[in-house]
Parts: sequence; C-alpha cells; structure tokens
Amino acid sequence: MVDHNGSDVVGLIVPDITNPFFAQLAKNIEMEAASRGAMVMLSNSHDDPDIERKQIRAMHGRSISGVIVVAGSDASRPASADIPIVSLDRRYGNYPLVATDQRDGAGKVAEHLYELGHRTIAYLTGPEGMDVARQRRDGFVARVNQLSTPEDPIELTIHSGPFDFETGEAIGREILLPVRKGARTTAIATASDQQAIGVLRCARDLGIHVPQDVSVVGFDDISMASLVVPRLTTLRQPIEDLAAAAMERVLDPSIFPADIAIRGSLVVRESTAPAAMWG
Amino acid sequence: MVDHNGSDVVGLIVPDITNPFFAQLAKNIEMEAASRGAMVMLSNSHDDPDIERKQIRAMHGRSISGVIVVAGSDASRPASADIPIVSLDRRYGNYPLVATDQRDGAGKVAEHLYELGHRTIAYLTGPEGMDVARQRRDGFVARVNQLSTPEDPIELTIHSGPFDFETGEAIGREILLPVRKGARTTAIATASDQQAIGVLRCARDLGIHVPQDVSVVGFDDISMASLVVPRLTTLRQPIEDLAAAAMERVLDPSIFPADIAIRGSLVVRESTAPAAMWG
Repeated sequence: MVDHNGSDVVGLIVPDITNPFFAQLAKNIEMEAASRGAMVMLSNSHDDPDIERKQIRAMHGRSISGVIVVAGSDASRPASADIPIVSLDRRYGNYPLVATDQRDGAGKVAEHLYELGHRTIAYLTGPEGMDVARQRRDGFVARVNQLSTPEDPIELTIHSGPFDFETGEAIGREILLPVRKGARTTAIATASDQQAIGVLRCARDLGIHVPQDVSVVGFDDISMASLVVPRLTTLRQPIEDLAAAAMERVLDPSIFPADIAIRGSLVVRESTAPAAMWG
Repeated sequence: MVDHNGSDVVGLIVPDITNPFFAQLAKNIEMEAASRGAMVMLSNSHDDPDIERKQIRAMHGRSISGVIVVAGSDASRPASADIPIVSLDRRYGNYPLVATDQRDGAGKVAEHLYELGHRTIAYLTGPEGMDVARQRRDGFVARVNQLSTPEDPIELTIHSGPFDFETGEAIGREILLPVRKGARTTAIATASDQQAIGVLRCARDLGIHVPQDVSVVGFDDISMASLVVPRLTTLRQPIEDLAAAAMERVLDPSIFPADIAIRGSLVVRESTAPAAMWG
C-alpha cells in the first residue's frame, strides 16, 4: 500500500479541476494528505465514465494506497479494484460516500428565503439524474412544503441544468425576462455558486437589481462568492471536514466504510434581502 | 522513465491549485498528457520552497518521467535531479522556461490604453523580486516610454503586491480613493485577472464606474474574466500552447532545452473605454 519511499500515494479523480469547487476540494485533499506525509495523484475525468475507469485501472497498477473519486455522473460504472475507493461529493458506483448533507443545506436556503418574506420562488436545480442535484432539490422542496400554508402559500417553480456559469446565465434569463414584465418571482435559489454567479451576470444585463428586485442564493461557497457584485449569500460546504473524512477513510481500512453526511452552514451576504412589496 | 504499466507519469508542481490560472494550466497539462497516453501527478507547493524541494525528491523516487514546475517564488533553490525538469510560467532554478512573452503582452496592454486616449495610468505590478512580475512591468513601462512624448506625455504610477484578489481590492482602494476626490487617473492596468477583479470589486464599493470613470485591464484571461461585471479586457495567455510546449520538452529529451516565450493576445471586452475628458 506504500511505495518504495515508504509514503502513501492517494489517487484523486475529479470531473473538472477548473470547477472552482473541485479545485478547492483538491487543495484541501492535498493539504490533508501532506499532513499525513502522503501525496496525491490528481486526474481529470472530463465527466467521461470511460476515462474514469481507465484512470482507476492505471492508478491501481501503480501501488496507489487508495482512490478518492468525485464521480462524473451517476452513470459511472466502477472498475473492480482491490484497493480502497471512497466516493466524495458525488457517489461512484456503490462505494461509500463522504458528502455534505445536501437536503439539510438546501432546506436552510429555503428557510432563509421564507424568513425574508419570499413567497414566489424559482429553484434552479442541477442536472436531472444526478443524485447530488436531486438531493438538493428534494431538500429545498420538502422545506418549502413544510413552510407553505393555505393562508400563506409559497409558489415554487423548478428549472434544471448543469452546475456551470453558462447555465445560470441562460436559465436566469428565462426566469428574469418575465420578472422585467411584472412576474412576481422575488427570489432565485440555485444548486451551485457558479449557477448563481451566472444569474447575477444575467440580472445585470437585464437591468434587474439584486437584491432589491430579486434575491439570489448559491450553494458551495467558492472564493468568488465573496467577490462578485453583490457578494453572494450561499450554503457553505464543509470542505475541510469533507477532505479529512475522505482521506481518513481511504487510508485506514479499519474504519467501517459507511456513508457520512456533514452539515453545511448558511452564509448570508448581500444578494438576499426582504421580498419587495407587491400589489 | 515509464512505470510498469508502460505509460509515462509526469509530475506537475504549482504554487496553488485554487488560483484559477494554475487550475486552467493544470487542466491543459492533464489533457496534453492524456493525448500522449501519460498521466499527471499534481502537487501544491503552497508557495513554500521547502515543500517544493520535498515534492521533487518524492517524485524522483517514484519513476516519474519528468517534472513540470511552476515555481513558487524566485527564491526557489532547485533540488538536484537526474530526470528532466521544465519550468512553466515562473522559472525554477536554472531549468528551461516555457512561458508567455510577458514583455510583449504587457506592451500590448499599454498600447491599447494609449490608443483609447489614457494619459494618466496606474500600473499594479506583481510581487517585487518575482521575475514574471518584473517582466510584465518592464514591458508595460517600456511601451509607455516609447509612446510618451513631451507634447503628449503619459503619467505613470506603479503599485506592487501579490497576484491575488485581495491585493487588487486593497491597492485598488489606494488608487481609486484619490480618483473620487478628483485625481486624474483614468486607467488601471494590472499584472493578473485576479488583481483586476479585485479592483472592479473595490471600484463598485466606492461608487466609481468602470469603464466610464476608469478603465481596468487584467492579465491571464481566466474564465471569470468574461463573467464579472463589467466583462474584463485582458491579455490572454496562450495556455494550450504553453501546456503543449512544456509537455513536449519534459517527455522528449532530444529537444534542446532552451527557453521558449509564446506571445499572448489582447482580448477587448467591456472594462476599457476611451478616456473621459478632463479640464
């Protein structure tokens, strides 16, 4: 399990290292490894299950101590391997998963918007068929249903697309064009900071003010979240804890390989405000 | 030079994978490796020369085919190694360097601002003592000196700090507070997109409009450059060509190990405009 230098090498496979959330995750995994005298071999799967399989096979042939996989999509079929494999953030096959408690996190976002008086909300979910996207959406919808009453109902519309900036910009347009014509939507919650930053970009282009006209919430808390205009309210994923738990599990076979879900925390910045008054 | 799977493994050491420019560089290096059937082992040096040395030693003991190093700082003292080492973007010791033609790129930025009529310009350089920062600054200053005449002089002030967002925000404040009180500076050129995005953030907080009041230019063309408000004019580093040249040199010992400088291109977006008229 250790190479001829006596130190562990852990493989890390992510769908795309230029996704800022995965870059921050990789950095934390690498710091966690360094603190244990281990090194990380990083690969990009480019969201391609074939490349993912090849990379795990190649790592397997290199006396790697174990592999941490952020799966590219739910369609990933794992290679068989006799080294420890841990899924991180997105499950790879049936391997144990270390992830943020997505339902809890999305529920906190719903609650925040409710408390600000938002009753007509658009939710931008991740790709259909991706477990992490479903869980965030389910958590959001469940909390909205709990809070909505016949006397004080919440109207919710759901939109769907990849986690990237471009999707936020494009779907943001679909949601915001009617707002400019008087539609009542006062808040947009998203499944990633990238989507939310895309929505901010689009709002700006349409002359819609955030948060005065519409509140926007992200999910992740990437570094850009506190730099964009306005600074983004978002759900912070517990990235240090995720990295530590994944590394612990991949290096110590004595730990029972069960899933672990870690709770995130809401970070309130400038992109959310009380709902504007309507007719 | 190849492992028992018969494929090359190339080491890549970057100062910080969460710097978006290095993440995009790592992705391109990884794609370049994949196209040659090779894999990449990535490490973060956290800008620490000791960690950098340890990582190269560790890679050396792992039948790595070669190492591509983006040096953490000019103080880096290379470990001795009998495998090929190539410096990328920032020189590591005396090893051959693959990099953007920094002087040419910064000169193009100076020319762009000159053509828009800017005659009072602030330049935000990178850290003192870092070669890549010096070259960009020298290229900028040299072009300004060529364009400035006694009849139509250009006033240039130089500010200095790390390449990150926070520096852009802090030094942006130093430059822009006097502008709010009537100082004549009409353009700010920076040594990185992160700095420029920090300047945009700070301009917004001070109620100064970009590009109406002040033009801002970056350097790198990270993906965020086209998402921020306003979209950033910047010097695009030829990242695919840099990755290809570095990989070629580290894998093929028959290539004469000389420096190579590749020219970048100016990308004009929305953060630059003709200089406002002044008394």
